[in-house]
Amino acid sequence: MKIYDLSPEISEEMIVYKDKAEKKPKIKAARTLKEGSNESRIELDSHTGSHVDAPYHMLENGKTIEKIPLEKFMGKCIVLDFTKIKNSITKNNIKNSEIKIKKNGIVLLKTKNKSERSFNQNFTYLDKSGAEYLVSKKIKAVGIDSLGIERNQPEHETHKILLRNNIPIFEGLDLSKVNQGRYFFHGLPLKIRKGDASPVRAVLIME
Amino acid sequence: MKIYDLSPEISEEMIVYKDKAEKKPKIKAARTLKEGSNESRIELDSHTGSHVDAPYHMLENGKTIEKIPLEKFMGKCIVLDFTKIKNSITKNNIKNSEIKIKKNGIVLLKTKNKSERSFNQNFTYLDKSGAEYLVSKKIKAVGIDSLGIERNQPEHETHKILLRNNIPIFEGLDLSKVNQGRYFFHGLPLKIRKGDASPVRAVLIME
Repeated sequence: MKIYDLSPEISEEMIVYKDKAEKKPKIKAARTLKEGSNESRIELDSHTGSHVDAPYHMLENGKTIEKIPLEKFMGKCIVLDFTKIKNSITKNNIKNSEIKIKKNGIVLLKTKNKSERSFNQNFTYLDKSGAEYLVSKKIKAVGIDSLGIERNQPEHETHKILLRNNIPIFEGLDLSKVNQGRYFFHGLPLKIRKGDASPVRAVLIME
Repeated sequence: MKIYDLSPEISEEMIVYKDKAEKKPKIKAARTLKEGSNESRIELDSHTGSHVDAPYHMLENGKTIEKIPLEKFMGKCIVLDFTKIKNSITKNNIKNSEIKIKKNGIVLLKTKNKSERSFNQNFTYLDKSGAEYLVSKKIKAVGIDSLGIERNQPEHETHKILLRNNIPIFEGLDLSKVNQGRYFFHGLPLKIRKGDASPVRAVLIME
């Protein structure tokens, strides 16, 4: 069994969306060994690093993260390689992939994004047609290796199409060490009451 | 496949160790739908709710959470029922269990603890002899359904025996809905740089 770690480190220096300072984590010691044990207090955005968006992120009556069945966050998964695409991933790009999408599977979109060392406004994203196509294939979750699955689309169409169909969106995954192929995915969210999203430790497992 | 959720909700009202106010999470809205999306800022203790302790929690040169191989946090698991024990779980209690411990397995200790609605100072804990016995059986991780694996033992012997042997300690699990038996466990920590511990979403899977 081989485990691929898809999560970047959480630290005060990590890359955050649009490089906004207020989105960076803050980590401080709450106790030290002198007092008997090391303990820390962590402050972070629900959308930090590798994380998963719940429907409530974009939809007023959308499900919050703790209400989503855990089956959605684990299971058979395909990684599709779109590293040659510069702008956006479309329906046709996905349709023309060598690996076919199965109903109830998890689909991860590998792009050129992860070669960046700071936030890149021009990250490759999933366009509306691609989101609609994934919905039509009845996938259960989707993921991408940028900190957003779309850029500044004014109506957040990609998010809304997916979230309206209760498809959780994993963002901020590190897919740089993973090739296109079939795997088993695990990326369980913290059970945050009324959460719009949660940081996750995400892995791919190859038996 | 049945999934048992072992994690309590993370909220500002949740139970924390010794009921200390400063250990409670704080969750606030960072953005709302009026601004385009719901996003939140979460502040919490590294030992909040269901979490896993790294050796660095108690040992100066102990491994920090992000350096521990992921294999430690997932795999074959047994749940042992000690709900009839009032005080502490000893070597003999574990030895006399109906289910035998296998090398490289994960062992979860189910106690009477989870019937409480507030923090109970007199929670059932694992004593030194029990910790030493688990080390001798070469388990890879251990877990319990109290917020600590020991109470106020001045030298933190249980923690130190386990952590010196690189056995991560899961605390704060909810085992109330799980019977003694064999399962598959998943409880991956967030990849917190130099972390002494991490909150986790923990599950047991029964095929």
